[in-house]
Amino acid sequence: MNDRSELLSQLPLRENLRGLSPYGAPQIDVPIQLNVNENTHPLPPTVVEAIAQEVAKAATNLNRYPDREFTELRELLADYLGHSLTSENIWAANGSNEILQQILQAFGGPGRSLMSFGPTYSMYPLLASGTDTKYVPGVRADDFTLSAESAAQQVREHQPDIVFLCSPNNPTGTALGLDVITAVYDAMSEHNGMVIVDEAYAEFSLSSTKSALTLLEGRQRLIVSRTMSKAFGLAGARVGYLAAAPEVTDAIRLVRLPYHLSAVTQATAVAALKNIELLLAQVEDIKTQRDRIVSHLKELGLQPSVSDSNFVFFGGLDNPHAVWEGLLEAGIIVRDNGIPGTLRVTAGTESETTAFLDRLAELLGAEK
Amino acid sequence: MNDRSELLSQLPLRENLRGLSPYGAPQIDVPIQLNVNENTHPLPPTVVEAIAQEVAKAATNLNRYPDREFTELRELLADYLGHSLTSENIWAANGSNEILQQILQAFGGPGRSLMSFGPTYSMYPLLASGTDTKYVPGVRADDFTLSAESAAQQVREHQPDIVFLCSPNNPTGTALGLDVITAVYDAMSEHNGMVIVDEAYAEFSLSSTKSALTLLEGRQRLIVSRTMSKAFGLAGARVGYLAAAPEVTDAIRLVRLPYHLSAVTQATAVAALKNIELLLAQVEDIKTQRDRIVSHLKELGLQPSVSDSNFVFFGGLDNPHAVWEGLLEAGIIVRDNGIPGTLRVTAGTESETTAFLDRLAELLGAEK
Repeated sequence: MNDRSELLSQLPLRENLRGLSPYGAPQIDVPIQLNVNENTHPLPPTVVEAIAQEVAKAATNLNRYPDREFTELRELLADYLGHSLTSENIWAANGSNEILQQILQAFGGPGRSLMSFGPTYSMYPLLASGTDTKYVPGVRADDFTLSAESAAQQVREHQPDIVFLCSPNNPTGTALGLDVITAVYDAMSEHNGMVIVDEAYAEFSLSSTKSALTLLEGRQRLIVSRTMSKAFGLAGARVGYLAAAPEVTDAIRLVRLPYHLSAVTQATAVAALKNIELLLAQVEDIKTQRDRIVSHLKELGLQPSVSDSNFVFFGGLDNPHAVWEGLLEAGIIVRDNGIPGTLRVTAGTESETTAFLDRLAELLGAEK
Repeated sequence: MNDRSELLSQLPLRENLRGLSPYGAPQIDVPIQLNVNENTHPLPPTVVEAIAQEVAKAATNLNRYPDREFTELRELLADYLGHSLTSENIWAANGSNEILQQILQAFGGPGRSLMSFGPTYSMYPLLASGTDTKYVPGVRADDFTLSAESAAQQVREHQPDIVFLCSPNNPTGTALGLDVITAVYDAMSEHNGMVIVDEAYAEFSLSSTKSALTLLEGRQRLIVSRTMSKAFGLAGARVGYLAAAPEVTDAIRLVRLPYHLSAVTQATAVAALKNIELLLAQVEDIKTQRDRIVSHLKELGLQPSVSDSNFVFFGGLDNPHAVWEGLLEAGIIVRDNGIPGTLRVTAGTESETTAFLDRLAELLGAEK
């Protein structure tokens, strides 16, 4: 134990935090960063300019608290999502992590439980712990798929208060069929539970994949969460949002901190949404690189999962940590999620993707 | 019950939220807004320009997650606070409400308790509830003062895990003597409890008032929280921060959401701090108006509290709600905190303050 952790241990930290380390992938400054599923395309100059202008406008009134209801932003998000949604269906927060935390504050907490199906987004159990919600780890098949039958059966067995379905799933990249979501919703309806579909990567989905937004109508306890971090290339702006029945947003209003979304954040998001076509144009590029990674990995004899996202999860590695290190030596960082035999890589720009594939081929050649 | 609240009641909301309304003062668009203790002076054009430039710079990299440790911002905040503090002593979040919520997530929670001394900032019990921390309402003397002896005695009686001391206090405006803070800290030391001094309004204090920053050295469980919302005129930017021992910031790192502070927020705060003299120049103007309100209210036969803040709390009203309504009719909104015989008014610009004082004199004349 070093001095600082010795000092930390003297503080009256709550018991479930003792001995933990802060969550977060290493922030290592290397040339090619393919480890945290960011959009590797910088914002187009037109959007940078629009953001600066909108923020300058907001700054003239920055001595005042922001619009607590961020009405313009909710309207633009509803327009973007379509599906007959209006601003009444929309809520936003500082990243989709805060969206999920607010959902747990409203519907979880002591004596309540959250279930999700691992391997999945590693923040879920941490968000549960942070809100004193019991975490129930559901399971997937050996190939990381989740069938409607298995999901519903697990839900009926554990009767969690809340289910998080990550679709496309992180870290495996594959979206759930709508049959899985409806089966889980129906099983949760038997005990009046909430179902959240985390669609952070939805814009990268294969054309045959359908969004859970199509299921919202008539399902009062269904929430679809989204983010501006990925497809929109705005990870640095921290804007997550959700679509649900209006009364769900009323529930969140009971737990949100007043003025949680700054005027600067609102201005940034509004400026980006007014230039939505420019942002989404990059999504097609990224999908092309993603598909290229999948086919090259197969050629290398590896087993990539079906990807509906801007990243590819692949198995078949004898020593993933050695490969991770070999990539890092070449200035390329990918993610080791600790799942045996696998790594995860974000689809980069064309040249970043080429650098990754070339180096990987080298490393696997050397390995054999 | 209307349709929307009927629908809300069908959702599986956690029990302690049932029947509540969202927190927040009415956001009414009237010409003279003196109800939420904002800095009524807009940012100087130089600062607006600096913010736009810094945000434009950040926007070119907005596809990447922000610096999770916001290092430059912590360095500038440490320089601003002085008292030999370094970036290791500093933490920041989206408003001081989030700072306080993170403190409760780290040191409060189920089975633990938070004490503060009412009347005080009305968010404290809500933050306790939101983190399932038991709220223990301490009391003040009839004139709203709090002595070292009384505070220490109440702490020893209830042995809370955490104490929030609001100084200058909201809504009464008066700072605590350092003797009160040390007495509470000593009493809390007997059971290893945390003491937070909420100094949101510290920059407006009377020259004889001392900051709890002077007490940090050698007190591991003392935290001083501050905000950029008030003196700096940045309520819309949502930046709160704290100064404490480095191990306290390590404790907060265990509960913060990863990347909770956006690159845009960091850029805005950094730009403002680089122009600190321009911002703080307005503080003297505000203090002048604040002192003017205090003396005029006395002349009107009212009882203003000593104010170390940018607002004045005053008693002696037969019918505060009628006065509140009479001011609103003239386009002036102040705050009715529900404390019998009292209202609270923010010190505005010179002309806003004049309008308030003139209208108040009229109303009191009419009342008699």
